[in-house]
Amino acid sequence: MAGRHNRGMNDLRKCALLVAYHGGAFCGFQRQPAVPTVQESLETAWKAVTSESVVMHGSGRTDSGVHAWGQVVHFSTDSKIPAEDMVSAFNAHLPEKAVVRAAADVPVDFHASSSSCGKRYFYRLALGATRPVLSSGLTAWDRTSHLDLLAMREAVTYLLGEHDFAAFAAAGRSTKTSVRCLRSLHIRPIRGGIGFFVEGSGFLYKMVRNLVGSLVEVGKGRRAPIWVETVLESRDRRRAGVTAAPEGLVLWRSLYSQDPFSTLL
Amino acid sequence: MAGRHNRGMNDLRKCALLVAYHGGAFCGFQRQPAVPTVQESLETAWKAVTSESVVMHGSGRTDSGVHAWGQVVHFSTDSKIPAEDMVSAFNAHLPEKAVVRAAADVPVDFHASSSSCGKRYFYRLALGATRPVLSSGLTAWDRTSHLDLLAMREAVTYLLGEHDFAAFAAAGRSTKTSVRCLRSLHIRPIRGGIGFFVEGSGFLYKMVRNLVGSLVEVGKGRRAPIWVETVLESRDRRRAGVTAAPEGLVLWRSLYSQDPFSTLL
Repeated sequence: MAGRHNRGMNDLRKCALLVAYHGGAFCGFQRQPAVPTVQESLETAWKAVTSESVVMHGSGRTDSGVHAWGQVVHFSTDSKIPAEDMVSAFNAHLPEKAVVRAAADVPVDFHASSSSCGKRYFYRLALGATRPVLSSGLTAWDRTSHLDLLAMREAVTYLLGEHDFAAFAAAGRSTKTSVRCLRSLHIRPIRGGIGFFVEGSGFLYKMVRNLVGSLVEVGKGRRAPIWVETVLESRDRRRAGVTAAPEGLVLWRSLYSQDPFSTLL
Repeated sequence: MAGRHNRGMNDLRKCALLVAYHGGAFCGFQRQPAVPTVQESLETAWKAVTSESVVMHGSGRTDSGVHAWGQVVHFSTDSKIPAEDMVSAFNAHLPEKAVVRAAADVPVDFHASSSSCGKRYFYRLALGATRPVLSSGLTAWDRTSHLDLLAMREAVTYLLGEHDFAAFAAAGRSTKTSVRCLRSLHIRPIRGGIGFFVEGSGFLYKMVRNLVGSLVEVGKGRRAPIWVETVLESRDRRRAGVTAAPEGLVLWRSLYSQDPFSTLL
């Protein structure tokens, strides 16, 4: 096999995939017994193509119901299939609501999660008395017809930057630290409601949905903008607002200093 | 009952509804035996609220799979329920993928279909090798990554204005005349593909989807722009391109010189 490639110490090839999926069709990204997951769908598709068993590592574990437009996944393989042929090979074997948008060879030290220098999320919230029937499953919905965007934007100013976000993390996953840097959080009117455009160094379990839920409390006038600062400083997860519904959330892209898909994004 | 209202010759009250629905959940607007339709859902909901049997008349019959954002429906009723209370009354009894956005009292001579002076449709076509998983069910999809918009726009110039559109009508519904006025047809890039924004005095059965299907043939370079003129002049429905898929089509609004929902639209 010598001479086939020249990728460093480890004689294995590493590939990355750019993956989109509709969260409503999966019980989250991470493989679990007896339920459909994105990880298992990708591993099964690859096995159908190559007969090779691999482990797919995602840039982050989206929860059940959460969508992705730019999930990045890596895996190690002995296959010689050119990266440009992987897209159609995967898509021929993936379920209807998941798709590989692009594939690329990456350096062997690339890791979808630990190489990532940040993530962008989009959260869509439909507002008003009537159910959002055309975008159902792709948007959260609140019957409120109006949220105070100025108050919400003021609240955001207390959240931006590097903080211990423990108060906005749900229990259930251990990480070394709950300090993250929230780089930007823009709230803008979109058709039928509002959109939250969120970027940070990384996010704790359910952190985006807890931030959105808390900001909506402020937007409804139930809490003053400065309330989010007291929640943040408390580091107490019982203090934050309700977790916003998963169907509004999209993992928009995972960021890398050397992005395997830079030409696409 | 005299004195309760004063609406002209006929002592009946007439109301109009502005209705949105996801076409994937219904076998079209018009009532048919043993399958879910929008008309039947509205009639059933009204009966649940008032015990009154009414016939719901739509501004047009959307086909199975076609969506609506601004379908207008009228019905006659003896009910005294204020129009502003009808929205929540209907929505409490409609299936998940249909919603009444607004309700209004209208003059007794108002007719959702025959009073309409035009319609607007939107057609969404995703382009590219990968399935549109996030908008699946709400967009048509063509694997082509590129369509020649300039050629398509040139083809549109042959279609605009008043013509006999028989070549673009599917068989199956009789109308007095197949002459219609196509007032505008804009083709614009939208996220992930292109959108067709279409307005006309009215449309024949499957006419919008046949126009889109024929324009896509031109966009792919299979036909020259002037081909659509020869199709139009032939008045022969076997000449036009394939009928574009229903899931890309949305009845955006029905137009009225005196619009019952003018403040909303």
